[in-house]
Amino acid sequence: MDGAVCLTSGGQDSTTCLFWAKARFAPLRALAFDYGQRHRLELDAARVICALAEVPLTVLPLMILRDLGGSALIGSGTTIQASGGRDGLPNTFVPGRNVLFLTVAAALAYQYDIHDLIIGACETDSSGYPDCRAQTIQALAQTLQLGMDYAVRIHTPLMHLTKAQTVLLAQEVGAMEALGHSHTCYEGCYPPCGQCPACQLRARGFAEAGVPDPLLHRT
Amino acid sequence: MDGAVCLTSGGQDSTTCLFWAKARFAPLRALAFDYGQRHRLELDAARVICALAEVPLTVLPLMILRDLGGSALIGSGTTIQASGGRDGLPNTFVPGRNVLFLTVAAALAYQYDIHDLIIGACETDSSGYPDCRAQTIQALAQTLQLGMDYAVRIHTPLMHLTKAQTVLLAQEVGAMEALGHSHTCYEGCYPPCGQCPACQLRARGFAEAGVPDPLLHRT
Repeated sequence: MDGAVCLTSGGQDSTTCLFWAKARFAPLRALAFDYGQRHRLELDAARVICALAEVPLTVLPLMILRDLGGSALIGSGTTIQASGGRDGLPNTFVPGRNVLFLTVAAALAYQYDIHDLIIGACETDSSGYPDCRAQTIQALAQTLQLGMDYAVRIHTPLMHLTKAQTVLLAQEVGAMEALGHSHTCYEGCYPPCGQCPACQLRARGFAEAGVPDPLLHRT
Repeated sequence: MDGAVCLTSGGQDSTTCLFWAKARFAPLRALAFDYGQRHRLELDAARVICALAEVPLTVLPLMILRDLGGSALIGSGTTIQASGGRDGLPNTFVPGRNVLFLTVAAALAYQYDIHDLIIGACETDSSGYPDCRAQTIQALAQTLQLGMDYAVRIHTPLMHLTKAQTVLLAQEVGAMEALGHSHTCYEGCYPPCGQCPACQLRARGFAEAGVPDPLLHRT
């Protein structure tokens, strides 16, 4: 099997991807970024999830994202709005964030002699982030391959799944226990607020899949 | 005129680009990265050059490049070799470095409502960096445009010029005084060592252009 680097945020999608990748790549490494997230809970969740998956986690500081500003999810003191950004995008939008994440992941993979990257990008959910689209990811893989003169494959197992299908995939790949430790809520609290757009999107997915969310039934 | 962001390193090529861009874009902003360069002289040079050009300079910390390691130009204690990297590339190679620089520059440009980026990438000189090639830069512009849903144009005025032609362009755009303050030497000293590959490449360009290098005749 080939090795791979899986991007990990401590959230539902990347957790599902991590377990999906576990059966397909070895050695598998997880990569998370510390960019001064407002909710430190996210990185804590990533650590617990990677320990459960028995996948080594590298946390790289990426403060440039904070310095670039413009996102309500980074730093404190800004109110999060469902839609306050340019062109109706939520103002949690950091332009091109996944391009930056994957570029750094590819440079790290190069050091490890690894050619496969996994990211939980999904164009089916309603957030509308252009850096989550298949077309963007394909163009980026091509760019990285050219820019490093090195084969780069970017796998996006969730790209065309609904949130309900992602829940079913998580069951299939054995990610449910770890999902009990994943972090979703924009408010950064546990138990989750249940009211923010992220909580509601997650709840809808579990409801449609007919599966209880292990996060809400954590023992 | 449209605004633009010009990547600036304090070196010969980006200095020439900055003056090339000055006549073509307004407002023009310069962007340099602090990634723990071994030679702090580079950022000092960028500051002097931008002051001479009367272009505001933003210096963004980008320590992820240092953390990614693998390059002799970053940090101290590693000997620089002309060719010690993978596939015969000089081991000053940070894989995909220009992809990272331009991605951050594009995110910054987005905040400023700017669509034009300028970089001194050149595939004519002999360094062989794949992230300097026109094909890479074109693929990246497309990726950034898709990933940010925002028009991005990347200008590379030096792409197909020889070093001698770049010297003549620098004369034409009024960059010669500033070039007297640019930094090239791998050894990080002033006056430059004259022996390292960077010094020799620079010297050849000025010699072929029949122009004295203002760096060697700084008053």
